[in-house]
Amino acid sequence: MAAWGERLAGVRGVLLDISGVLYDSGEGGGKVIAGSVEAVARLKRSGLKVRFCTNESQKSRRLLVGELRHLGFDVSESEVTAPPPATCRILKERGLRPHLLVHDDVRSEFDEIDTSNPNCVVIADAGEGFSYQNMNEAFQVLMGLENPVLMSLGMGRYYKVTSGLMLDVGGYTKALEYACGIQAEVVGKPSPEFFKSALWEMGVEARQAIMIGDDIVGDVGGAQRCGMRALQVRTGKFRPSDEHHPEVKADGHVDNLAEAVDLLLQHADK
Amino acid sequence: MAAWGERLAGVRGVLLDISGVLYDSGEGGGKVIAGSVEAVARLKRSGLKVRFCTNESQKSRRLLVGELRHLGFDVSESEVTAPPPATCRILKERGLRPHLLVHDDVRSEFDEIDTSNPNCVVIADAGEGFSYQNMNEAFQVLMGLENPVLMSLGMGRYYKVTSGLMLDVGGYTKALEYACGIQAEVVGKPSPEFFKSALWEMGVEARQAIMIGDDIVGDVGGAQRCGMRALQVRTGKFRPSDEHHPEVKADGHVDNLAEAVDLLLQHADK
Repeated sequence: MAAWGERLAGVRGVLLDISGVLYDSGEGGGKVIAGSVEAVARLKRSGLKVRFCTNESQKSRRLLVGELRHLGFDVSESEVTAPPPATCRILKERGLRPHLLVHDDVRSEFDEIDTSNPNCVVIADAGEGFSYQNMNEAFQVLMGLENPVLMSLGMGRYYKVTSGLMLDVGGYTKALEYACGIQAEVVGKPSPEFFKSALWEMGVEARQAIMIGDDIVGDVGGAQRCGMRALQVRTGKFRPSDEHHPEVKADGHVDNLAEAVDLLLQHADK
Repeated sequence: MAAWGERLAGVRGVLLDISGVLYDSGEGGGKVIAGSVEAVARLKRSGLKVRFCTNESQKSRRLLVGELRHLGFDVSESEVTAPPPATCRILKERGLRPHLLVHDDVRSEFDEIDTSNPNCVVIADAGEGFSYQNMNEAFQVLMGLENPVLMSLGMGRYYKVTSGLMLDVGGYTKALEYACGIQAEVVGKPSPEFFKSALWEMGVEARQAIMIGDDIVGDVGGAQRCGMRALQVRTGKFRPSDEHHPEVKADGHVDNLAEAVDLLLQHADK
């Protein structure tokens, strides 16, 4: 593989995944991944543009940012690209009234959306909210629609919390797709539209940007398909087999965000 | 389409699906589909061989047969081909110790199976047992195995109970497949092995047998792929769009089991 200088040449903007890169979520607000608070601060002090691009759909951005700030991170709501506000824009544009299969903590993001007489289903990481009854209700709404629309906030397979790996929204979306014989529309990584929003908000071209994430498919593969470079950190949900993934090859692996930032500050354009 | 006489010529054995064909399950033991008690009795009095081939995996055969007999059906446990006993045979043959994600009512079917220190997961229609916690436990067992084996008792998309349509095991299997990046082994319809067991138990060749079911993919498509003929009833989970399914074309549609039996008694070999 080429030297880091070559691989990072021309990078002007950095997209950071949050969970598994900055911290592992979990009971009591989660746990910082060592060195990442300082790494974010150094990155923001450098000339590089920074944006947080997350598939977090279990918490509102306000809750998420509150948790991160409590852990010492310098981050504000306006710096975060997350699926719920992007979904609200789409729902409004298309006159869709969702049945929400979402976590209570993210419901407030949909406060301005009409949910009466639903003509679509929006599914997000509902955690314990993924009960049989709630899944069946969403299924019944979809089966009752002539043209069923299922919108999924990300397609994550799983994520890591302090106590271990946890099922994410992707599997539950697959369950509804299979039961109803339909295909979901994905709002979030790895959807190209979602990465493009984040790039647009940051004001850099795909070829000038690099994604740093712990998900080999959602973060690394998704960003690369948009023309960006992507590094995988060996934290969060990273598993050694990811370094030999049959389809996705990261532009580089780093032990953690701190190492990624060291390399960027040495080699990227500032 | 050819006349019924031609379509049913040479039929000597009849495979009957249970739920949606004989009755709709539900609160208080479910509800008979009109005419089906008499239809089963007439079929059994004729010279045709009859076997009940079901993907029911939420109840033990004992419970299921008890429910059916209570509703007036002439059926015994030995006439039923169902996934749980077939699964037990496979588990024993391969020395597999399952983590069971199953309904409490079917757990007794696995009484003789060692479930300590699991090296596979068996998933069946768990109904309300499909909580987030139970799904996550099964997921974590699979992720902890070097060669994860997931055995699914059927791949049903949904079934009908008296109160409406209900999610079946198929979607939940898809969820685990996606989250773990694996493929499940299916024990039940539409697995060819399962249909072949039922044929062997009945002692007829595939070309001499006809399946009667309400599931266009699992019953009709599965049986046809084994060389059998198959009729779809317009009861249970049948939906009008099934008559124009993009991939599966039934050998005939009948309003209900009673009509199917009328036709068989007129045209099949006895």
